[in-house]
Amino acid sequence: MDLAGSRYKVLILGGGQLGYMMINEGRALPVTFYVMDEKSAPACRIAEKCFSWEQYKEAVDSVDLVTYEFEHVDERALEYAHEQGKLFPRIEAVELKRERHKEKLYYKNHGLPTPRFEVVHSGEDALRVAREEFNNWAVIKKSRGGYDGKGQYFLKGSQEGLEFLRESKCTFVVEEYVDFDYEASVIFVRGRKERANYPPTFNLNLKGILIYNYGPITDNGMVDIARRFAEGLNYLGTMGMEFLVKGNKVYINEFAPRVHNTGHYTLDGALVSQFENHLRALLGLPLGSTEVRNFAGMVNLLGVGEVPEEVFKIGKVYWYSKEGVRRRRKVGHVNVLGDSLSEVKSKIDRLMELIYNNRVEEFV
Amino acid sequence: MDLAGSRYKVLILGGGQLGYMMINEGRALPVTFYVMDEKSAPACRIAEKCFSWEQYKEAVDSVDLVTYEFEHVDERALEYAHEQGKLFPRIEAVELKRERHKEKLYYKNHGLPTPRFEVVHSGEDALRVAREEFNNWAVIKKSRGGYDGKGQYFLKGSQEGLEFLRESKCTFVVEEYVDFDYEASVIFVRGRKERANYPPTFNLNLKGILIYNYGPITDNGMVDIARRFAEGLNYLGTMGMEFLVKGNKVYINEFAPRVHNTGHYTLDGALVSQFENHLRALLGLPLGSTEVRNFAGMVNLLGVGEVPEEVFKIGKVYWYSKEGVRRRRKVGHVNVLGDSLSEVKSKIDRLMELIYNNRVEEFV
Repeated sequence: MDLAGSRYKVLILGGGQLGYMMINEGRALPVTFYVMDEKSAPACRIAEKCFSWEQYKEAVDSVDLVTYEFEHVDERALEYAHEQGKLFPRIEAVELKRERHKEKLYYKNHGLPTPRFEVVHSGEDALRVAREEFNNWAVIKKSRGGYDGKGQYFLKGSQEGLEFLRESKCTFVVEEYVDFDYEASVIFVRGRKERANYPPTFNLNLKGILIYNYGPITDNGMVDIARRFAEGLNYLGTMGMEFLVKGNKVYINEFAPRVHNTGHYTLDGALVSQFENHLRALLGLPLGSTEVRNFAGMVNLLGVGEVPEEVFKIGKVYWYSKEGVRRRRKVGHVNVLGDSLSEVKSKIDRLMELIYNNRVEEFV
Repeated sequence: MDLAGSRYKVLILGGGQLGYMMINEGRALPVTFYVMDEKSAPACRIAEKCFSWEQYKEAVDSVDLVTYEFEHVDERALEYAHEQGKLFPRIEAVELKRERHKEKLYYKNHGLPTPRFEVVHSGEDALRVAREEFNNWAVIKKSRGGYDGKGQYFLKGSQEGLEFLRESKCTFVVEEYVDFDYEASVIFVRGRKERANYPPTFNLNLKGILIYNYGPITDNGMVDIARRFAEGLNYLGTMGMEFLVKGNKVYINEFAPRVHNTGHYTLDGALVSQFENHLRALLGLPLGSTEVRNFAGMVNLLGVGEVPEEVFKIGKVYWYSKEGVRRRRKVGHVNVLGDSLSEVKSKIDRLMELIYNNRVEEFV
């Protein structure tokens, strides 16, 4: 690797915390970072250059590689980068996320385990299928624009409060409600030659938002599923795959074609983080060690602008320096390490008490 | 800690790799970074603002705190920041480093172990004292401007080749040559209330430049000496203290009033690095965990612009993106982790082979 000679220019579409951390981690590599987003976005503030969404052609033309920290960004930028052969992960991964029913059909067609579902094209049909096929134990999900729990409606035996859906002409996925034991995820990295993964973690979500996670936990075949998916898609870079676990059965909930919130613990839990390995994959560098030597965990800072000082003693605080703190907003996270899962878990418990006074539901 | 409300402005004097890493690590805190150095310096390129040395007043006036990544920077900037009450570590620490004999006298006057020495004011006297007092087993060190082995002359029984010193009217320290078993160091952090230290490491130096180090190793009282020194000086921030170890005796070789090359492994070996803890100390935040859970080490990249890809598989590469690679220049480093010291040591051995073809002496 010619470190002194080759300086890569990488454009990141989206300037949120994922791009922010990608740049910080990428500072150890010979990379110049450009970001496309509002000037006040965290990653824009620290990038070598910040482009507006209107400047997508100029921005893409001026770099070697384009990646994204969020799959729901301006489609013109994604498409143009794809046309120039510079977009990684490739556009196929984004297309599965644009319309959720395509993602679900992909799993089904490739024999990857996911909760049973039907695709419908109106709210009327969604409610009918939920009733007839799933006895109202179902999740109705809008096919477009859903992330962090947006556009998802949980039915637990009743359609109460969901009458408004009847008016909708959207495409929906109606999915069997899996009464899972817990949620989990795998961060998988597919390089140009090599493959790597971080071990599965236990994830606690609330109202569709990750609160905390920790690991490593039992695999139950999750890594293999993530690997098969990434191979089938000819994926390049880091991805997150979320699972529902019931007994020793696992179901894909969804994947994210990017670095993932449940992989933030890798900043401290592994020698090389999900962010750096994403860049290594794009640059064609060997992937770095994903081994988690001890045990690690993370607590999100959601809608809190202040934390007691003790938080800094227990863990490593990552503050994203976003403009404005509001409910549900991811404004930072705290990583912790331990010599056992129970040590990590008790640190997380203490953080939940310190940060949220044990009432996180009021913050999301 | 009000993360959303209080955004500190910190000015770093010096834009080299230590400032570069301090900024990257500081991105997790609510800090805006200004740097004073040439525009092309690594830290200047990623800082929010870069100031020239001529702009020292404006720069100091525009921030809350001033620190330095190198003690031999423009004295006007240091003095002015001190006068404004913004300089940390305090000016007293810099003053000990400006003139090496003051540092040595400080150790002596405070009962801190250091090799026996005399202070002289000409090269003529230096050679005389070396002969008369130390039987030519001595190190003659210029009092001003010495770092990375500059201005140091080793006598091992003879004054051959040192005749040129007779002309000098400088102040020198003439020191007993200690036939040490090995060199070691301690990274100590003194906060506004708390104290912390990383465990001692074994250091291999060549021609006054660090090649690699690893740890933790046996303490032999080094941490306590560093602590006593920091307390006596009312020090604030991270410092490095280097020792010569002979049997179970330790002698202070020198200290550095800043983050230190032998602490680079803390980026991966501990939850909170020497860089972040330096900033935490300045900001009055609680210090973070300095525990080294496993074993860790580091190999410097000195004057090499290219490394085999295998290096990326073994360790985490930090490339400083300096302009130009030349002999003895620190252009990056590689961190490694292991479950035992011998695992770390064998990774270092392999890196030395890959990076330097086992001929590091040709690079320094």
